[in-house]
Amino acid sequence: MALLDDETIREALLHLDWRRERDELVKVVKRGSFPMALAYVNAVGDLAEEANHHPDIDIRWDTVTLRLTSHDAGGLTRKDLDLASAIDALAAGA
Amino acid sequence: MALLDDETIREALLHLDWRRERDELVKVVKRGSFPMALAYVNAVGDLAEEANHHPDIDIRWDTVTLRLTSHDAGGLTRKDLDLASAIDALAAGA
Repeated sequence: MALLDDETIREALLHLDWRRERDELVKVVKRGSFPMALAYVNAVGDLAEEANHHPDIDIRWDTVTLRLTSHDAGGLTRKDLDLASAIDALAAGA
Repeated sequence: MALLDDETIREALLHLDWRRERDELVKVVKRGSFPMALAYVNAVGDLAEEANHHPDIDIRWDTVTLRLTSHDAGGLTRKDLDLASAIDALAAGA
């Protein structure tokens, strides 16, 4: 999958609740308890399996940090934007 | 809860599948797939909730890294050894 140029990423981020750190998209979510954080991770995990694309996931009690990149492409691709968007869509409910 | 001395920790580690890194116990587990890694995290999460003691959890596709310490005590306590041991006990099955 093709790497995205900076302008495309910048525009996409206007509609996404993620920030860019070099070649990664980063999202930090606080859930108020460990079980709620774990429920969120499971919901993210379902989307990741569906997309066959897996963010790095760090759990610190009620706080989940997700990092997305396309290792095979060496940077950010459409796959990352699509999964970031799908994860944002579940943020309210999950 | 009281901090453990180095000798107590060293002896406990003879029977645990964790290594010590400064004030933390660290365990790295590979599960062969992302869903298996997530299932393991959920099993660990159940034990953590039961113990009301929560390791830092990092998921990198099929690999889970757990880090245990007692932040309130500023180091390793019996609580860490007990949870480390409980997590080891589920390693075979979960």
